[in-house]
Amino acid sequence: MFREKNRHATAAMPHTAVPRDAPLAIDTANMYRPAGADGVDAADLAVLADPLARAHQALTERTRAGLESEYACLTLPAHMPAQLPQIWEAAQTIRRFRDVLVVGIGGSSLGAKALYRALKPVFPRPGDPSLHFIENIDPPYLDALLAHLAPETTAVVAISKSGGTIETVGQYLCLREWLEKHLGKARARQRQWLITDPAQGWMRALAAREDIPTLPVPPKVGGRYSVLTTVGLLPLAVAGIDVAALLRGAADNAARCAAADLEQNPALELAALYYLLDIRRGKRISIMMPYVNPLDLFGDWYCQLWAESLGKRREGAEPAGTLPVRALGTVDQHSQLQLYLESRRDKMFTFLTLRHGERGRAVPLPEADRAAFPYLEHRSLGEVLHAEFLATRDVITRAGHPNLTIGLPALDAHVLGQLIDLYQRVTVYAGLLYGVNPLDQPAVEAGKKLAVQYLSERVGGR
Amino acid sequence: MFREKNRHATAAMPHTAVPRDAPLAIDTANMYRPAGADGVDAADLAVLADPLARAHQALTERTRAGLESEYACLTLPAHMPAQLPQIWEAAQTIRRFRDVLVVGIGGSSLGAKALYRALKPVFPRPGDPSLHFIENIDPPYLDALLAHLAPETTAVVAISKSGGTIETVGQYLCLREWLEKHLGKARARQRQWLITDPAQGWMRALAAREDIPTLPVPPKVGGRYSVLTTVGLLPLAVAGIDVAALLRGAADNAARCAAADLEQNPALELAALYYLLDIRRGKRISIMMPYVNPLDLFGDWYCQLWAESLGKRREGAEPAGTLPVRALGTVDQHSQLQLYLESRRDKMFTFLTLRHGERGRAVPLPEADRAAFPYLEHRSLGEVLHAEFLATRDVITRAGHPNLTIGLPALDAHVLGQLIDLYQRVTVYAGLLYGVNPLDQPAVEAGKKLAVQYLSERVGGR
Repeated sequence: MFREKNRHATAAMPHTAVPRDAPLAIDTANMYRPAGADGVDAADLAVLADPLARAHQALTERTRAGLESEYACLTLPAHMPAQLPQIWEAAQTIRRFRDVLVVGIGGSSLGAKALYRALKPVFPRPGDPSLHFIENIDPPYLDALLAHLAPETTAVVAISKSGGTIETVGQYLCLREWLEKHLGKARARQRQWLITDPAQGWMRALAAREDIPTLPVPPKVGGRYSVLTTVGLLPLAVAGIDVAALLRGAADNAARCAAADLEQNPALELAALYYLLDIRRGKRISIMMPYVNPLDLFGDWYCQLWAESLGKRREGAEPAGTLPVRALGTVDQHSQLQLYLESRRDKMFTFLTLRHGERGRAVPLPEADRAAFPYLEHRSLGEVLHAEFLATRDVITRAGHPNLTIGLPALDAHVLGQLIDLYQRVTVYAGLLYGVNPLDQPAVEAGKKLAVQYLSERVGGR
Repeated sequence: MFREKNRHATAAMPHTAVPRDAPLAIDTANMYRPAGADGVDAADLAVLADPLARAHQALTERTRAGLESEYACLTLPAHMPAQLPQIWEAAQTIRRFRDVLVVGIGGSSLGAKALYRALKPVFPRPGDPSLHFIENIDPPYLDALLAHLAPETTAVVAISKSGGTIETVGQYLCLREWLEKHLGKARARQRQWLITDPAQGWMRALAAREDIPTLPVPPKVGGRYSVLTTVGLLPLAVAGIDVAALLRGAADNAARCAAADLEQNPALELAALYYLLDIRRGKRISIMMPYVNPLDLFGDWYCQLWAESLGKRREGAEPAGTLPVRALGTVDQHSQLQLYLESRRDKMFTFLTLRHGERGRAVPLPEADRAAFPYLEHRSLGEVLHAEFLATRDVITRAGHPNLTIGLPALDAHVLGQLIDLYQRVTVYAGLLYGVNPLDQPAVEAGKKLAVQYLSERVGGR
């Protein structure tokens, strides 16, 4: 049934023309038996018919109220376009600065960083600002950055949904002080933007007190689902990336996933497969492996989304959630492939590949080297990459590991919008199948409290 | 016994003086019961007494012949200093170029990249060349790079132990052609260096034919163990990093690990713990989590070393090798911690932390904000980072997960040399305990052959 659906969709070499706004080519054939020897079969899917119908119904109901819905994140493609004029206006102002410091961590950073890395030009275009993501605490880096930058031409965008994330608040306060010391309060204020909850939190109160421009995060959208809100859209717009196309791609994917039927709705099919391979086939580890070098940070966004949404205790059942692991082709052929092929059979794979990618330079093969590398003659670097992908997928399939391939019709904002919406949707469906709340993160609070306690009391011997 | 050995070695805040050439502070207390509820106990270790003695004997015997030994990689700290004058001489020449393209993949890249990232200044010093690592195939990146660089002031260092790695050969040929087109053959040759096997392979033959300067990789040292050979030392020396200190650190660690006794030899203890937690406690996933931002690429080197050395089929036994996973504190508190705490109890953790790290800027807390963040008052960013590390380690320990902490006395070449030698040694010991050859990678060949076949025949429809 699904087995042949998209078979060989990605087998052609990547040098045909790029159709505009083409959909993702999702090839699930190797997730099923017999192609993937440890894959899912019809009986597994039959058992899941009712839970899948209920999951789809729940998702549909819980998105009906738009941005007020429980799953508001899935309605962003419909509702964020209305905010684009406001985002563009802020972005135009911020783009006048030479350096833009984007301060945020986790959900306030991983998505924008991954998309920026994938879509920015290799070298900045004239007029584009340099973006610096200030995420992790790294004192020497911050010191060097501030020694290197001119406050006059530097803007700060601080992002925290709650408005109180300790890493972000701490670093933002240091940046404010640096701006104020050099420029005075008033001019420092012209170089700050805050992205936070519209009604509550420290950042919101600060913005009101000091009249700092802000952009709101919809209250019902949590950090890891927020890349399609101002959290991701503002930094990306500042970088000159086409955020309208990003939302359009997400909307196109949402429309594609409206059907209740597994065969018509790829998000539902993927959720079912990832879930069944975990609970029925012992595939506890889910490896995300792009063969698209600029997607090397996409896995960071995906791993947060998946782990924090699904890695959860359940009453009377095994804990939910496969471990998401990021890899990168071809690099990890030289690093992880040995283990993938010979170690435990507890893994499944998701490949991302560029269907219509650049062929790149032809490998120039001197006469003397034709005997050594006959297969490189008249081949481009893009063809070498694609042959390595096909070969790796084949050896992984032959070893029995279930795997799926998402063929990207291009590496652009519309395509990545689809990919973002697809995985947010798959994650919510999977949460419903596991019976966990995909929106909370109850276990994380204990560590935050403990860190505060250590800072207050013990640490430093104060 | 081991439980109290180094307990609290890393609990102090990181602002004491840095002792010169101090050893790693290895705190294994939480790997044992009862601290880590799922940890190892005395009975587990007792069973392992003979295998450990045999492993240590094997390692000792198989390193006795120096660079001709089976485990030649572990003798590099003793033998590479003799090659430093040759490496420095080449590095001095290469440093005169403005841009240096380091072409290599996997073992020919991950180690140098990780150390470069950890040890380079945040912004280049005057006179330092810019290093560009050309690892993965990424046609638009290569095109942009070559459009941006001046051939006159660019040098190429291509690295492949075998001399025939397809990604490296393909990209190196493109770079050669670019140099030759702009500068002619003779001047292009003055801008190339090859690092490869001293006797065989395509690169070696090319070097002989065209009189291209080369540096040798010791024949018995495989890619993933080669960061302390010319493979890592030349690029790092070009970057101005103190490679003599790197080797000295490795030698100091080697001396520390000379004892046959678990209590005296941290490499032997770590190998025993990682191994026992896998086979006796079901800890199949080993997470490497630095709380040192510039070590964010260290996990890539470690993951290759561990996975390719140990992820192997065994006759009549479960496959060997835990899955190595890289994480980063504090970022992954906001991403993976939820899953670590509530999902399956199949994980163990290795934390890296800076014992004497920079305190960094004090968080400037305005009067109005003291009520909101009383615990930030008079705290530095470094203290915030360290409190978060302590809190996360505590919640992970309370959840029962075994974990160990390696406290780095500083972030310098001597310390990272220790860390490199430690993990190479742990990996070899672990291979001996599992009964697999830690030096080969038999499963990887099939994919390489298949890629060549696809390039020759099918792909591209030629």
